[in-house]
Amino acid sequence: MTTIHRVFNFAAGPAVMPVPVLEEMQRDLLALPGVGISIFEISHRSKEFEAILAQAEADIRTLASIPGNYRVLFLQGGASLQFSMVPMNLLDAGATADYIDTGSWAEKAIKEAKKVGNVHVAASTKADNYSRIPSAPEIRLTGGAAYVHMTSNNTIEGTEWKTIPSTGDLPLVSDTSSDMFSRPIDVAKHALIYAGAQKNMGPAGLTLVIIREDLLERSKARAQSLPTMMNYAVHAENKSLYNTPPAVAVYATGLVMKWLIAQGGLAAIAAVNERKAAKLYAEIDRSGFYRGTAAKDSRSLMNVTFRLPSEELEKTFVQDATAAGLDGLKGHRAVGGMRASIYNAFPEAGVDALVSFMQDFERRRG
Amino acid sequence: MTTIHRVFNFAAGPAVMPVPVLEEMQRDLLALPGVGISIFEISHRSKEFEAILAQAEADIRTLASIPGNYRVLFLQGGASLQFSMVPMNLLDAGATADYIDTGSWAEKAIKEAKKVGNVHVAASTKADNYSRIPSAPEIRLTGGAAYVHMTSNNTIEGTEWKTIPSTGDLPLVSDTSSDMFSRPIDVAKHALIYAGAQKNMGPAGLTLVIIREDLLERSKARAQSLPTMMNYAVHAENKSLYNTPPAVAVYATGLVMKWLIAQGGLAAIAAVNERKAAKLYAEIDRSGFYRGTAAKDSRSLMNVTFRLPSEELEKTFVQDATAAGLDGLKGHRAVGGMRASIYNAFPEAGVDALVSFMQDFERRRG
Repeated sequence: MTTIHRVFNFAAGPAVMPVPVLEEMQRDLLALPGVGISIFEISHRSKEFEAILAQAEADIRTLASIPGNYRVLFLQGGASLQFSMVPMNLLDAGATADYIDTGSWAEKAIKEAKKVGNVHVAASTKADNYSRIPSAPEIRLTGGAAYVHMTSNNTIEGTEWKTIPSTGDLPLVSDTSSDMFSRPIDVAKHALIYAGAQKNMGPAGLTLVIIREDLLERSKARAQSLPTMMNYAVHAENKSLYNTPPAVAVYATGLVMKWLIAQGGLAAIAAVNERKAAKLYAEIDRSGFYRGTAAKDSRSLMNVTFRLPSEELEKTFVQDATAAGLDGLKGHRAVGGMRASIYNAFPEAGVDALVSFMQDFERRRG
Repeated sequence: MTTIHRVFNFAAGPAVMPVPVLEEMQRDLLALPGVGISIFEISHRSKEFEAILAQAEADIRTLASIPGNYRVLFLQGGASLQFSMVPMNLLDAGATADYIDTGSWAEKAIKEAKKVGNVHVAASTKADNYSRIPSAPEIRLTGGAAYVHMTSNNTIEGTEWKTIPSTGDLPLVSDTSSDMFSRPIDVAKHALIYAGAQKNMGPAGLTLVIIREDLLERSKARAQSLPTMMNYAVHAENKSLYNTPPAVAVYATGLVMKWLIAQGGLAAIAAVNERKAAKLYAEIDRSGFYRGTAAKDSRSLMNVTFRLPSEELEKTFVQDATAAGLDGLKGHRAVGGMRASIYNAFPEAGVDALVSFMQDFERRRG
């Protein structure tokens, strides 16, 4: 058997997956054991696929301790489609939704919500280049708002909420695309959680939605006007089988959930993630050659963003790192600099390799 | 190496894929050659993925001889989301869209369009249980209609259009989900073609849209109100990379396109499909024990539907067939009976096996 060459993949998403998951998918690719049909080919109406879907949901519920009055939906379209589905389902004409503006993705969510109804920006750190999460006193909520929207981790800017903001009786909606399942999450503090799968969960093409059942009434009230595919209640009633779900992505995500459970669950993976991130931030803070872009109390454990003394050095850094098998370190085109995305499945050895590379690069170029 | 047991998979979609494609995906699952990253993990902004996407589009263009003034889009949400996207992009308030009602999926498309604007049913064969395609004189188009919508192959009822209806200057929109790439298609006769991938193209989770460029103006005019993810022009401008595309499904579909080209293209595969379907219809017509449900001039080459003398016999037929390794023959729950879906990748040996089984079953039970 040929040795398979794999690089350290620091991409922000789609992102690295656990090797044992890839190996299991590879082993069973031509035919699921005992089924004789590949996951790429299996009918979504078959009892075998229904079992895969049900098991993925059960494992997600176990991992995040999801209360019984929440529904778990497997949808398509990514967070970008959720930016529209959330207001289309939850925001009445004439009502107001509160949005906390913490980065580029929050801005996109706001833009889509404004097409549907009134938006109040309850807090924004745009004036600080989104380098920090707002403090509690900065957040000004609207009484009777349809919901409050937040972005739990800001993939591009490298910041994350350390505690969930208190919204009182207002339903909290959170885009958790880039930190879902990277740490424990108190689902009961949310009304709706959504996340694209392609960071901590699985491949691109699947969107997880966790919605409190009472919110489905808002969707049902709009059944006559809302596109059926955009209606949360329809997907809930049909157990994510209203139409053909992205079967391969559901299956892959299910395998990742099993892997996560085997790692010890969310508290255990959070400890690993903290350790990995701490190593990188320690290196960033060590010498002054590298400069972290996020405020220290807002630093993301998933996306570690930093700059070098010049854009020329940054370009060389990316080139040299890529040549050394450290891939995907270039920051998002909107902000520049470096970004090391170190999701659950990113190996600690890759973090160590990056730290060594950073030290070596500084010696050579600093 | 263990022998891999594969059944004959007659499922209507997701459906059987070419074994060489599955084998290539299996071989490269842990890392694309020379890349060191799995297709499940690769950044959609990487040059390697952009090349995969561009090659898939190029092969699709080659196969279907797509004129230069058409754009090819890789979207999510299946035909079900297109049922809404088509009217949301193309149907002005106050304008009328014509729909030709040839089956359950056409009905769903009509239901969604009615949420957006006026719908005129230009023809319907519902009174005949959708057992046939309407003749040209039956189709009554609306002068100045925003578009005319048809369903080229009716997966559930087992019928297909043998020729594309003439719509004059009216833009023709066709849902080709279950026969796309099964036979040559005159793209220039259409304004918009859409198809879920999970029948003849690849796995579930990818939707192909082929749209004539002038129609994008209608999308652009709605940019302020239309959800960005539902806007064809946005996806066209961003070359299907506005948001993260379903990378694995794009890749798999690309491999299927390469396989199709290697088979000789659409005319060659159509000849094989005609031969496969002819064998099954000949058996259905042979003795009178089996009864085809579609009118002979409307018979689908993709989904061969038939009944047995009683529902009890049908139940036994499905059970015995499954036990014999002929899987997925139960008809859609909406219509009952049998359905043998024999898409491009369905092996002719499986058709022969079903014919033998049908003859044997009739001898035993007839």
